[in-house]
Formats: sequence, structure tokens, C-alpha cells
Amino acid sequence: MGRRPTDARNRLAAAAAALLRDRGYHATGVKEIAAKARVPMGSLYFHFPGGKQELVLSAVTESGSGIDAAIDQAISLHPTARHAVAAFIDHLANTLETSGYETGCPLATTGLELGVGDDPLAAAISSWFRSWTSHLAEAFAAEGRPDAEQLATFVLSAVEGGLLLARVARDLGPLRQVAAGVDRLLTPTAGDAEPGPPSDEAADRRADVPAP
Amino acid sequence: MGRRPTDARNRLAAAAAALLRDRGYHATGVKEIAAKARVPMGSLYFHFPGGKQELVLSAVTESGSGIDAAIDQAISLHPTARHAVAAFIDHLANTLETSGYETGCPLATTGLELGVGDDPLAAAISSWFRSWTSHLAEAFAAEGRPDAEQLATFVLSAVEGGLLLARVARDLGPLRQVAAGVDRLLTPTAGDAEPGPPSDEAADRRADVPAP
Repeated sequence: MGRRPTDARNRLAAAAAALLRDRGYHATGVKEIAAKARVPMGSLYFHFPGGKQELVLSAVTESGSGIDAAIDQAISLHPTARHAVAAFIDHLANTLETSGYETGCPLATTGLELGVGDDPLAAAISSWFRSWTSHLAEAFAAEGRPDAEQLATFVLSAVEGGLLLARVARDLGPLRQVAAGVDRLLTPTAGDAEPGPPSDEAADRRADVPAP
Repeated sequence: MGRRPTDARNRLAAAAAALLRDRGYHATGVKEIAAKARVPMGSLYFHFPGGKQELVLSAVTESGSGIDAAIDQAISLHPTARHAVAAFIDHLANTLETSGYETGCPLATTGLELGVGDDPLAAAISSWFRSWTSHLAEAFAAEGRPDAEQLATFVLSAVEGGLLLARVARDLGPLRQVAAGVDRLLTPTAGDAEPGPPSDEAADRRADVPAP
């Protein structure tokens, strides 16, 4: 009906990403993905000859790059990294609540479900966690914060844990407490240099960092 | 062969707890649990007439209370909550590494896998997360730290997220960075009241903890 073939491919990846996010890897079958995407099974195997594994890899890329873009957007829209992180956690909290506590981190459930035998998928998910960390770390480094990479890992970990606790509790309380803790952590104390506008040192340092 | 009936029940719960911890809920079947426990299927249904659901609830209790006891033990063995948390994260890191990155949080994977239809299990897992938080919060409060409950939620969330990132990366790096962040967070700054030596209340509490 005039739909381009790539429409089906995109719908399949988006449907897979949504199911992985809300139910995880083992509870998501190819039939369910095809039904959600309103694409016949033959078309699924035409676009993804590798079946579930290939489709899941594509869905992981879709979810991972989506969060990268959302982090960048939050950073560009807010005056400091602290404000950006607060707004991003607020967005995650709203999404979790309005979905009836189904929609948390798009990659966490699948990442935890994978045994050591599923290395390509685990490696793909891990590379997205590293990418999100790098985007956060860049924003922290641009404000001249020391140990920007470690701080970014700490903040991402706290948010992931807060999403886990809030999802299981069916209550935003733990995520709100994490948001308060992150905000306090990122608030400069009297002894610290006030972060941002970006210092020359941070700009120099960013110029020195080799592309990954 | 002289084994008491409760041996089989205990072995089943322990086997289920180990499988849920390493593989999660959906990848764990009753046949696998029975095989791991070396208990016949008939015996499994004798001890757990409710099947997988009842067995999983029992396993969740076993895992949840085990972490409660481990947190209490770490607190009783170390001079400050900060040292106890550092030792506990170190223990988690060693366990994760020596298991080939299979053994992380015993409840996180199952908690994330549960849809909104699995409320009794999610409620049980959530109550254990709250219990772990309370044990940590008590130790923080005993040192006179403000917002002990929020701090405990923040620390637990960061550790959960660090375990997730490290497990998926098959590398302890993220968990080590979380450990460094938690340690910095719990290190008193010049402006804070120095936590510890423990107040009388904390000393009383520690005296009540039976030796492990």
C-alpha cells in the first residue's frame, strides 16, 4: 500500500526495542515483535534473516542511540550538566510512571538476562552504556569537574539502580531519592570551583582526548 | 538415605536462588531447579505444590535475607559504615569476577523481568530492596548522617547499577568506579560533623548482632 520496504524494517526494530525495554529478552518472541510491528513473519525474516538475534541487535542500536540523543538534547537545553541530569531523570520518572511501571531502561533487563554465552549482544549493550557514560562525562569535563569519567559512571549507575528499585516498587520514591542524591553530588560545595561556563582547561582537555 | 525431608526443601530453594541470580526468572525452569538440587520432580511438587511461583518466592526470601545478613555482618566487622560499604562492594566485585560475570545481584534480573502481572513476586523483591536500604540507613543514622534513608537508597542504587554495568561489560571497571564514588560520598568533608566513633545507640545495636 505504498509503504516502502524500509518502513517495515524500521517498525520491526522499533517494536523489538519497545518489547525488550518493557519485558526483556526471554519474554519477547519474534511472533510478538511481528504482531506489534504489524508486519508478516515472512517480511520479518526477509529484513532480518538472522531472526531474533539480528533483530535484537538492531533494536539495541535503536535504543542505545536514542538515549545518546536524549542525553545530548538535555545537555544542550540546560545551562549546566547538573540541570540537564535532573531534567533527564525527571523525564525517566515520568515515562516510568505513565507506562504503569513498564518502561524503564531500554537495555538493563536484556543486559542482565544474557548469560555468558550471548557475547555479541552483551558487547553491544555494554558499548551503549559506555557511550552514555562518555556523553555525560564530556558535559562534566566541559565544566572543569575532576574525574569526569568516574563521576559519569557513578551517576549512570545510580540512575540505573534507581530505575530498577522504582520499577520493582511500582513507586517513584527510590528514583526521586536518587535524583536528590545526584543533585546534591553535582552541586558545587563552597570549596569547589563553580562549574561552567566551560573553562579553558576543560576545552583544552577535550581537544586532547583522542576520538574513541 | 537418611536425609531429612527439609534437606530437599532447602536444597530446592538454594538451587532456585542460584539460578534466578545467574540467569533470571524466564530462563529458569522447574526441571532445571530440580536437577541442580538433585531432587526428583515429585519431591519438588511435594515441597512446593504451587510450583515455580512458590519456589521462586521461597528463593527470593533466601536471597533477600542472605544479603540482609551480609550487610549486617559487614557493618559489625568494620569501624564505620563507609568501611563496611567499601568491604561489601569489594565482596560483590570478587563474587562477580570469580563467577565469570554470572553472579551479580540475586534479585535484580528477576525484578526487572517481571511484568505488571506478577505483583506478588515484585512486591516480595521490592520489600527486600527496602530491607537492605533500611539496614544501610540504620548504620548511616547511627553515625549522625543527615538524610540517612535517602543516602542509603542512593548508595544501594549506585551499587545495583554498578553491578549491572560491570556484568554486561564482563569487567569490574564500572563497579570499581562506583566504589570510588561511594567512598568519596561517604567521606566526611571539612564542613561536616565527623561520623563515628559510633554513638551509644550504634554500639548497642552492634552488641546485639550475633556473631555470624
